[in-house]
Amino acid sequence: MNKERIDRVLGNLEARGLSQALICDPVSIKYLTGYYTFPHERFFALHLSSDGATLFCNRLFPSAEGFADRVVTFTDTDDPLPLVADVCQKGSALGVDKNLPARWLLPLMDLGAATGFEVASGAVDAARSAKDAEEQALMREASHLNDEAMGWLAAQVRPGVTELAIAEGLLGAYRALGSEGYSFEPIVSFGANAADPHHEPDDTVFVPGQMVLFDVGCLWQGYCSDMTRTFFTAEPTERQLEVYETVRRANEAAAALVKPGVEFAEIDAAARDLITGAGYGPYFTHRLGHQIGMEVHEPGDVSGSHHEPVRPGQIFSIEPGIYLEGEIGVRIEDLCLVTEDGREILNHYSHEATGLTV
Amino acid sequence: MNKERIDRVLGNLEARGLSQALICDPVSIKYLTGYYTFPHERFFALHLSSDGATLFCNRLFPSAEGFADRVVTFTDTDDPLPLVADVCQKGSALGVDKNLPARWLLPLMDLGAATGFEVASGAVDAARSAKDAEEQALMREASHLNDEAMGWLAAQVRPGVTELAIAEGLLGAYRALGSEGYSFEPIVSFGANAADPHHEPDDTVFVPGQMVLFDVGCLWQGYCSDMTRTFFTAEPTERQLEVYETVRRANEAAAALVKPGVEFAEIDAAARDLITGAGYGPYFTHRLGHQIGMEVHEPGDVSGSHHEPVRPGQIFSIEPGIYLEGEIGVRIEDLCLVTEDGREILNHYSHEATGLTV
Repeated sequence: MNKERIDRVLGNLEARGLSQALICDPVSIKYLTGYYTFPHERFFALHLSSDGATLFCNRLFPSAEGFADRVVTFTDTDDPLPLVADVCQKGSALGVDKNLPARWLLPLMDLGAATGFEVASGAVDAARSAKDAEEQALMREASHLNDEAMGWLAAQVRPGVTELAIAEGLLGAYRALGSEGYSFEPIVSFGANAADPHHEPDDTVFVPGQMVLFDVGCLWQGYCSDMTRTFFTAEPTERQLEVYETVRRANEAAAALVKPGVEFAEIDAAARDLITGAGYGPYFTHRLGHQIGMEVHEPGDVSGSHHEPVRPGQIFSIEPGIYLEGEIGVRIEDLCLVTEDGREILNHYSHEATGLTV
Repeated sequence: MNKERIDRVLGNLEARGLSQALICDPVSIKYLTGYYTFPHERFFALHLSSDGATLFCNRLFPSAEGFADRVVTFTDTDDPLPLVADVCQKGSALGVDKNLPARWLLPLMDLGAATGFEVASGAVDAARSAKDAEEQALMREASHLNDEAMGWLAAQVRPGVTELAIAEGLLGAYRALGSEGYSFEPIVSFGANAADPHHEPDDTVFVPGQMVLFDVGCLWQGYCSDMTRTFFTAEPTERQLEVYETVRRANEAAAALVKPGVEFAEIDAAARDLITGAGYGPYFTHRLGHQIGMEVHEPGDVSGSHHEPVRPGQIFSIEPGIYLEGEIGVRIEDLCLVTEDGREILNHYSHEATGLTV
């Protein structure tokens, strides 16, 4: 149980006028208690209030004893919802997880577990968004392993290799580095395939001269990395180099702007304005980035519609791209940690236009 | 849009006193309309009433035009819930999907979309449980491919091979048979590993003489197969053969009992009583089986606590097992279709004790 994190969530709830919440997201429960299980369809939840933290676990799960102030267990033939209602402060409103399913929410309403029910996941999301020192260290190591893996990837580009063969081999490379595995399914794109930012690796065979894009990430002790690099395998044309350098400058311009108080939308605009100025605005077709931590996409994106200021401890991707259908795609992505007075880029693999010897 | 299936759901709703329902399970929506998308966190739902079927789709999804009586589209910046409330019969109660999340259910309540809200997934589950002729044909073919794959698996057992190598190779074997892939992650267990019914294939190396268990399934046009066989790789000991033959007879005794009107619990008991009579009752540690179709586990299990009678068109696994920790595990599993006057076993791979030449 992480009392400091729980207190932050209780503070965030109080700011919303709430004294209690019921959380059912397994990743958030792990964040707050250290206990993780994937419950499938079984009931699993954490109730938080000033009276303490109560974890509700099926007896088929590994024991959660010691992970919360109270652990309430039940079997497959018990109805856990009256047990939850007993712990709720019935005279107050209850904040609930945004994904609490109807089959649990409706019975809690029928049981009169609270005076009202409202979605309160934002209180947990805000706490998870600002990574503490322990989390920052894990994120730094996850990105360090990803830098190492990018070197392995670059060495796999050989005539005749397929996208799928490299993508599937990456799992072994991550494991050899000590990682638990992928943080998301890797993107490996040869040539014009890179013009689709979500291209899934397939049987496309590498032909020397094609550009190669890798968008990959691994897990380190439950924390995610995510990085993209785009390589040349022949002398670039003038246009290829112009596109590459535009993306590189967009990445670096956005990163240079990051410090507490700057809006997410301003960071997106720094990259977007530079790409638009170079004439490629319509070809940068997605948001600049997303927050990341225990999950590869966490709430609060780096986009033109997100006007909150960034705060110390937040970590997000900066991943501008230019996509010319049927021709090329370039994306350069790093993870960026907001520090007290600026930023720390967690990836150290070079941005320089690099020609691989194939 | 499958009008006959939708009418069955409306009939089931009426039997529960409901005139309308909001379904958000993508597999159920595919079952009823033929339209499939995986919406991630985006809103996606089907409203059913005597006024017709209305599908609510984000414009980022592939077009659903023609898959329902009405298709209502919206963008990421629109709030879809007022659009849903507009379609609801506000003077009646609304049946909702058991997994409708709080972030959609609470706003529908605030909008006064209905006079009451209750979980009504059972009306859809009951329809999906009784497979129609088209579905039965797809399930038969999925199990036929799985029989073929079992032959491939048996041929992979060689000194030095690992569980993981066989499990990973199975994907290619399924694809070569025309399947879309696994219906669940395969279980490959050598020797005492089979004593854990949920063993995950690992780097365990096969040693001749070990027993080998395969619990595997594939997809055929969106429908699932699931079968288990346990092989010998040396002359069995008397005890090994006794365990094997007990499981085999339990499988066949349960199957022989299946016909419309027999309770799920009676089918479970037929296998369990036989295993208990042979002295292995405490070592058969799970339910006899589960229903299966578009999903590998569908509601309504074959267990001692399920007292409904089976109905024509239902398909479930019959999978007795005996697990002796640190020693051996044997399970023999087939899929069983309830016919008008009995049963059809969808798997045809032999139950006979088989010694593989390794």
